[in-house]
Amino acid sequence: MRRELFTPDHEAFRRLVRDFVANEVVPHYASWEEAGRLPRALFEQLGSLGLLGMAVPEEYGGAGLDDYRYNVVLQEEAARALVTLGTVRTQLDVVLPYFLAYAGKEQRGRWFPGLAAGTLLTAIAMTEPGTGSDLAGIRTTAVRDGDAYVLSGAKTFITGGLLADLVIVVARTSTDPGNRRAGLTLLVVEDGMPGFTRGRVLNKMGIKVQDTVELAFDGVRVPVANRLGEEGAAFGYLGHNLPQERMTVAVGSVAQARAALDTTIAYVKERQVFGTPVASFQNTKFELAAVAAEIEAAQMMLDRAVTELVGGELSGADAAKVKLFCTEMQARAVDRCLQLFGGYGYMLEYPIARLYADARITRIYAGTSEVMKVIIAKSLGL
Amino acid sequence: MRRELFTPDHEAFRRLVRDFVANEVVPHYASWEEAGRLPRALFEQLGSLGLLGMAVPEEYGGAGLDDYRYNVVLQEEAARALVTLGTVRTQLDVVLPYFLAYAGKEQRGRWFPGLAAGTLLTAIAMTEPGTGSDLAGIRTTAVRDGDAYVLSGAKTFITGGLLADLVIVVARTSTDPGNRRAGLTLLVVEDGMPGFTRGRVLNKMGIKVQDTVELAFDGVRVPVANRLGEEGAAFGYLGHNLPQERMTVAVGSVAQARAALDTTIAYVKERQVFGTPVASFQNTKFELAAVAAEIEAAQMMLDRAVTELVGGELSGADAAKVKLFCTEMQARAVDRCLQLFGGYGYMLEYPIARLYADARITRIYAGTSEVMKVIIAKSLGL
Amino acid sequence: MRRELFTPDHEAFRRLVRDFVANEVVPHYASWEEAGRLPRALFEQLGSLGLLGMAVPEEYGGAGLDDYRYNVVLQEEAARALVTLGTVRTQLDVVLPYFLAYAGKEQRGRWFPGLAAGTLLTAIAMTEPGTGSDLAGIRTTAVRDGDAYVLSGAKTFITGGLLADLVIVVARTSTDPGNRRAGLTLLVVEDGMPGFTRGRVLNKMGIKVQDTVELAFDGVRVPVANRLGEEGAAFGYLGHNLPQERMTVAVGSVAQARAALDTTIAYVKERQVFGTPVASFQNTKFELAAVAAEIEAAQMMLDRAVTELVGGELSGADAAKVKLFCTEMQARAVDRCLQLFGGYGYMLEYPIARLYADARITRIYAGTSEVMKVIIAKSLGL
Amino acid sequence: MRRELFTPDHEAFRRLVRDFVANEVVPHYASWEEAGRLPRALFEQLGSLGLLGMAVPEEYGGAGLDDYRYNVVLQEEAARALVTLGTVRTQLDVVLPYFLAYAGKEQRGRWFPGLAAGTLLTAIAMTEPGTGSDLAGIRTTAVRDGDAYVLSGAKTFITGGLLADLVIVVARTSTDPGNRRAGLTLLVVEDGMPGFTRGRVLNKMGIKVQDTVELAFDGVRVPVANRLGEEGAAFGYLGHNLPQERMTVAVGSVAQARAALDTTIAYVKERQVFGTPVASFQNTKFELAAVAAEIEAAQMMLDRAVTELVGGELSGADAAKVKLFCTEMQARAVDRCLQLFGGYGYMLEYPIARLYADARITRIYAGTSEVMKVIIAKSLGL
Repeated sequence: MRRELFTPDHEAFRRLVRDFVANEVVPHYASWEEAGRLPRALFEQLGSLGLLGMAVPEEYGGAGLDDYRYNVVLQEEAARALVTLGTVRTQLDVVLPYFLAYAGKEQRGRWFPGLAAGTLLTAIAMTEPGTGSDLAGIRTTAVRDGDAYVLSGAKTFITGGLLADLVIVVARTSTDPGNRRAGLTLLVVEDGMPGFTRGRVLNKMGIKVQDTVELAFDGVRVPVANRLGEEGAAFGYLGHNLPQERMTVAVGSVAQARAALDTTIAYVKERQVFGTPVASFQNTKFELAAVAAEIEAAQMMLDRAVTELVGGELSGADAAKVKLFCTEMQARAVDRCLQLFGGYGYMLEYPIARLYADARITRIYAGTSEVMKVIIAKSLGL
Repeated sequence: MRRELFTPDHEAFRRLVRDFVANEVVPHYASWEEAGRLPRALFEQLGSLGLLGMAVPEEYGGAGLDDYRYNVVLQEEAARALVTLGTVRTQLDVVLPYFLAYAGKEQRGRWFPGLAAGTLLTAIAMTEPGTGSDLAGIRTTAVRDGDAYVLSGAKTFITGGLLADLVIVVARTSTDPGNRRAGLTLLVVEDGMPGFTRGRVLNKMGIKVQDTVELAFDGVRVPVANRLGEEGAAFGYLGHNLPQERMTVAVGSVAQARAALDTTIAYVKERQVFGTPVASFQNTKFELAAVAAEIEAAQMMLDRAVTELVGGELSGADAAKVKLFCTEMQARAVDRCLQLFGGYGYMLEYPIARLYADARITRIYAGTSEVMKVIIAKSLGL
Repeated sequence: MRRELFTPDHEAFRRLVRDFVANEVVPHYASWEEAGRLPRALFEQLGSLGLLGMAVPEEYGGAGLDDYRYNVVLQEEAARALVTLGTVRTQLDVVLPYFLAYAGKEQRGRWFPGLAAGTLLTAIAMTEPGTGSDLAGIRTTAVRDGDAYVLSGAKTFITGGLLADLVIVVARTSTDPGNRRAGLTLLVVEDGMPGFTRGRVLNKMGIKVQDTVELAFDGVRVPVANRLGEEGAAFGYLGHNLPQERMTVAVGSVAQARAALDTTIAYVKERQVFGTPVASFQNTKFELAAVAAEIEAAQMMLDRAVTELVGGELSGADAAKVKLFCTEMQARAVDRCLQLFGGYGYMLEYPIARLYADARITRIYAGTSEVMKVIIAKSLGL
Repeated sequence: MRRELFTPDHEAFRRLVRDFVANEVVPHYASWEEAGRLPRALFEQLGSLGLLGMAVPEEYGGAGLDDYRYNVVLQEEAARALVTLGTVRTQLDVVLPYFLAYAGKEQRGRWFPGLAAGTLLTAIAMTEPGTGSDLAGIRTTAVRDGDAYVLSGAKTFITGGLLADLVIVVARTSTDPGNRRAGLTLLVVEDGMPGFTRGRVLNKMGIKVQDTVELAFDGVRVPVANRLGEEGAAFGYLGHNLPQERMTVAVGSVAQARAALDTTIAYVKERQVFGTPVASFQNTKFELAAVAAEIEAAQMMLDRAVTELVGGELSGADAAKVKLFCTEMQARAVDRCLQLFGGYGYMLEYPIARLYADARITRIYAGTSEVMKVIIAKSLGL
């Protein structure tokens, strides 16, 4: 069905992104996958084209258009070209909102120009070994000492942590055992600060252009001036941004399911078995028709949710429904598509194989399907 | 998420329907199920309240509001009260559009007042024993003889056929073997015409308030004045109305899935097993959360499609996607809900059991899931 | 694959059953469904042929062959003919084992001849309104008063309760709050005992030849001579027979899934749509192939479990795995088969519709799928 | 349930394999995955222990025990240790049977000792670029020229092709267009024969210890003495061995699903989230219980089929049912298990991630699920 989400401005942006992806991403993507990370230069290119600063105020070199639909276009156009934007997406959809919402005037001056220009790369460090996504269990501590916090602890599963110039670290600044959610604070650790080291790069099944690393903080002195927002307020901040983090996964899931469908349609029309195109088999037609119907449902649900997100009215439970449905749909869709490739579907030179390996994370990160169900069930009064 | 489909007018209509269903349908529903049909009086009541004539022009006693969203409200409010409107729905969503689109001026004068008032009940007779939904295989013939057609043949699976005053019969008026789709014509057979008899009432697994019968036509003389539209044009007419027929099934599927969810939530909160409410089990929460997410996806897809239908831009392939997804979703949802009732879910005194039995037809009628896939696959170029 | 379960004796028994079902069950089945129960005469016929007394010792008129495989044959042959044996199955597979295991010498003399002859019909009454399958929550009480117990309480979901001459009632004879499992006793209530009344016949979605009723006990004096086994020992007795009760459901599920497959294969070969047999579509072939593979898996699992049951070594967890898998498989299989019938699949004159409605109970009774998972999980150390 | 497949001899063999895997495979597995192949030395070690020659006649250094159950044990013990034996499995289960069945006396003397000793590595080359698994479409030709065949063509998806000393090539020796199946012949190409080159190593999503390569034959002179069996008889030979090739995939699927379950049970017991073990959640219990039930069904089906295979009575259709069911089950099982690991499930250092990536091929190779359905449907008369 016709989508009603985008304005002509978004479509103009889309054309820009489409060209960029075709010329600057697709030709290099395989080498980035092999390297296990995106190059810094990509961020700078994106920055110079204005693609990173859409939401950054104009006075800092951005476009001043804090409209999540631009982020949607970025993911859609990458998926359309059978690639992803890896940590660019994380930076824009997950990390940047914290800077935009909580950076003070001085911090804005220090950081926003670099964020818009693509010269400052970022990450956010929440998860710790052993605690998973349970914020209440965070053990990284930040002890105030004069005009600095002394930060100690370990983080893991940090997307983009390898190259990040700025890492927002969720740390415990108060250890009131009665309210373990109350004492969390966001601190911005900078590359090169003494005691800040990057550990192992984790070897993932897919999403190979995103580096995922362990970080260690051993008595890092983080100036109070690097605190984002209020001391002890991080729990609320993190919760506030969760719907968008979940939406961004859903957006990618739908876009990549659609890409899987498109590449499979092209393949089955061309590929012959037993002297006839794979597309001519009823099973092929029925499988892809079922996939197309599911994608359509997910897209309509998603577009409605994006509209609500942009309007500031998307509830946590609705974001959870969208993430749950769209990622589960993606898993079913990509699996069915891959099957139609036969043995080629297992070869990484065919994008469908990468789409399959990449897809397995979406039901897990930004909150597992199980966590989504917990949230939805609560909203049902259960 | 918030639905954007309805205006205040629809909501006023909804309140009217809600009261009517509560007072005039729910108390009698069990007896109608036992009888295997709705009473004529129900149509007259609905007619007198103006609920049947929304789309009929004002000059014939209707409201002149040909807006499918009123039909949506009718189904939603029935489902909300854990009933259906059976053949009322068929009359409004499936049969009436043919009268509205193809009746000539004289026919309008004869039939529209009764259609609006609920004194003329209708059915449409397409399917024949042995040919199923294959219009090209229709063998009922209508041979022109002066100012009448002589109609002979047999029809089956006729919803509402038992009480219908007017039956639109799809008959073959030309037997050009080269184009078996070309010679089909719509004739309106009236109750009491010599040679028109009603056969067996079919015993269905569910949807018990809808009678489904066989009809026989043995040399019935149908005046040419009872022909709907042009001779030989029926294939096009039937195709034109298919998207709405499929949408009406999808609307019912989503509304009834939602009703299943609601009644299940209420049940699991109240019902205790092993000394604790069923709602307290994580399995219960997760099952219902997954159902809720699927319903939300279906609803958003459906609402978008209704908007396109109302705007006259819904394609056949998109209607097929919506019917396929919504009915398959309903099947999964109602099955999961029923399971949470334990043994009570199998007892027809619990509406969930009826919802389950009713649900099995939606993947079949108005085009099976397989037919939907054929249509969708064509639209994908397969 | 070849089944290894049966000996020539079983196969001879199978031929006897096959003839009996064809001649004495199939012609009357529709009328029994309408009546909502089996006739007493059926039990007497079965008894006179020796089909009810296979497991009853020879001295009481039985064959002295306590071999569950005969019960398997009964269910398989009924399913093969697209019927079920309803409460016959319950009597043989669920109730009779209690009599065989726990009846004393005097009771044997009183009851066994009638059980073998089919003149004594039976039921077992466990479930109560509001407690479900939670034995610990049983509130029906039996208070010792001289040489009788005074029995008071209500039971529901009693299969075969309408015609039962003997009802084994699970009652609480001790109310030690510290061990609610300890005080349960089996008492045999006889038809006609003062204070024993039969309540509503429940209206079920399917399994229409089995009556399911409510029973009430209002100060019924049950002689101590009618106690089965020891006072307070019922919890153990009930647990001991559970694997067989679950197996009997699984046996029916597999047999009926196979019957669904067979009747569907026959149908799709004969039925033409769009001028070609339904069997010629790849979708039809693939659906039925998938169903056949699942049935084969279930059959092999089941046969192995029957062998273990007969050998006395089937664990509760393995019985739970078998019931869970076979009933879930049945649900998937019958649903897929029905779909291939199109509209006819929804008409009760086609056995597939009855198979579908009947199938919905198997994931529920004799322990829901959820209860099976609890048992299995415990066996996994979870 | 208790498995009845193995004798004490198999269990003794199992202990030997278990030790070998623990000591000689597990410590090196990660490095082999990185290398993308097994080392030759592994074959020699296995050979010296007699593990490769179980089926080879004693006169050639084998054990003379052509009993597929030994192969089953090998796969099971590898899976149990969360590894696979990669191309060892292919050599024993897929390639060796051709040598055993069709090698003449002189060939036996030349090749069998090396096959038993692990000094001759093998592969079989069927699939060609563009024809997939359609043997009738094979275009590699072998033209008789004196005492040799001149072999030309290209093969792809050749498991173990990188190190193979002997490659059985399926080539066309007759081009009778009327019977494209008739003219296929098996030729053994040896490492070093002029014109035989190995092409690209394909980059697969999983099964990383198995190399999969392209092979090219450019006028290779293969002595007639290297022909396996009769000229033109290969189609029958290949068909004859297909059941075992499919069984070997099914054996691996079940063994690896079981390994996934076991490692997941261990993980969820240990891993804490929100202060409680993952194992304590009902969702965890229910997911793993469902997985366990499916594995049990698959195992019982599989064991029965292995018995039939060993007895020489397993039909192609039954092998297809087993492969279809077991591989589809594996996919469901491993996916559900992985989910319970959360983010760790996506990290390749956790074996569950490798099990997931490895599992995606089993529904494809040795005949896709779709091909299995075609075979099964034929056996159903469809």
